[in-house]
Amino acid sequence: MSVNDLGDGELATSSLLNQLIESLQCLPGVGPKSAQRMAFHLLQRNRGGAKSLSDVLNRAVDEIGHCKNCRIFTEQESCPICQDASRIRTTICVVENPADVFMLEKSTDYKGLYFVLMGSLSPLDGIGPQELGLPILEKRLAEEAVEELILATNSTVEGEVTAHVLSEMAGRQGIKTTRLAQGVPVGGELEFVDQNTIAQAFAGRKTY
Amino acid sequence: MSVNDLGDGELATSSLLNQLIESLQCLPGVGPKSAQRMAFHLLQRNRGGAKSLSDVLNRAVDEIGHCKNCRIFTEQESCPICQDASRIRTTICVVENPADVFMLEKSTDYKGLYFVLMGSLSPLDGIGPQELGLPILEKRLAEEAVEELILATNSTVEGEVTAHVLSEMAGRQGIKTTRLAQGVPVGGELEFVDQNTIAQAFAGRKTY
Repeated sequence: MSVNDLGDGELATSSLLNQLIESLQCLPGVGPKSAQRMAFHLLQRNRGGAKSLSDVLNRAVDEIGHCKNCRIFTEQESCPICQDASRIRTTICVVENPADVFMLEKSTDYKGLYFVLMGSLSPLDGIGPQELGLPILEKRLAEEAVEELILATNSTVEGEVTAHVLSEMAGRQGIKTTRLAQGVPVGGELEFVDQNTIAQAFAGRKTY
Repeated sequence: MSVNDLGDGELATSSLLNQLIESLQCLPGVGPKSAQRMAFHLLQRNRGGAKSLSDVLNRAVDEIGHCKNCRIFTEQESCPICQDASRIRTTICVVENPADVFMLEKSTDYKGLYFVLMGSLSPLDGIGPQELGLPILEKRLAEEAVEELILATNSTVEGEVTAHVLSEMAGRQGIKTTRLAQGVPVGGELEFVDQNTIAQAFAGRKTY
């Protein structure tokens, strides 16, 4: 292979290195330049780390699946939160992503269960109720003694639409739904808060 | 494990996921937050990419070594550039990193050989002549018919010191050394060029 045949970001001396640079670009936010820097760094300074990353990545892809109850990532059939006998089983909090569970666990003292949609309704991208596992949730609502469904989907258009669909589903079974409060972020200055948020916060003002 | 025992960036439901997030942080520029985003992205949207990254990474660490002549990364004993019969063997260009070879190949029509130091002299960090492979280079200078050693180390303090040591080594064998020109970057405005560069460019001015 002549050196001049090479595309952007390719080094002539090792096709395996080029493959590595290419493969690293499957990571979000990593382009050709960062991938090259990562490849050189790993080969030059941290072959042990690279080896163990390779092992863990391989095992993670093979072993990590979704909890059969709440769809969160876990290598067990049912996740530790669902198995935890101390959690209150009458409340289910629905979130879009596993990272949201983690944020709620860190920020609140919520002791109920979760349901992770792994996305939000987006018919144009082919993400419908089936992809979000809504039949599983519907079955849980029918079979378990759920009293409250907390709609903690994102405050985006897709998140609101998803929340609406979820609230209709819960309504059919006579289950109460609640939605996270919208308003001014804590520590936020009114001057820099967007108009929609101000409008929501104003409309939702409470007795002081 | 209770959820409250978790540190920053850990999710309670999968210890393997936590290991993956930890392992991803061996990549340069990747902290806990990005690692978490990467792990979720790979598991949620690109398990195929993750699998092949794991494979390539594993093979790269096992197979990619250094060319015995020029120390560049290659999975062969001697790299394609060193093996290429059309390259001019009387010139060796010394660079600090493999990425520099790649930049020179892209930007110039240089047809000689290379030598990659894999760093620059930095006695405080324990990087001396041995670590940079200078004995290998010295042997090449003694045994091959080298006429010119191009010092293309970085224009930093360490790079300059390294260039100085290299030029002394070449001088002992009566080999001519050249150094990349210093001056105003092409397209640069004088107003925004730093004082040292201006001084070097002024002192090194050429007949127009």
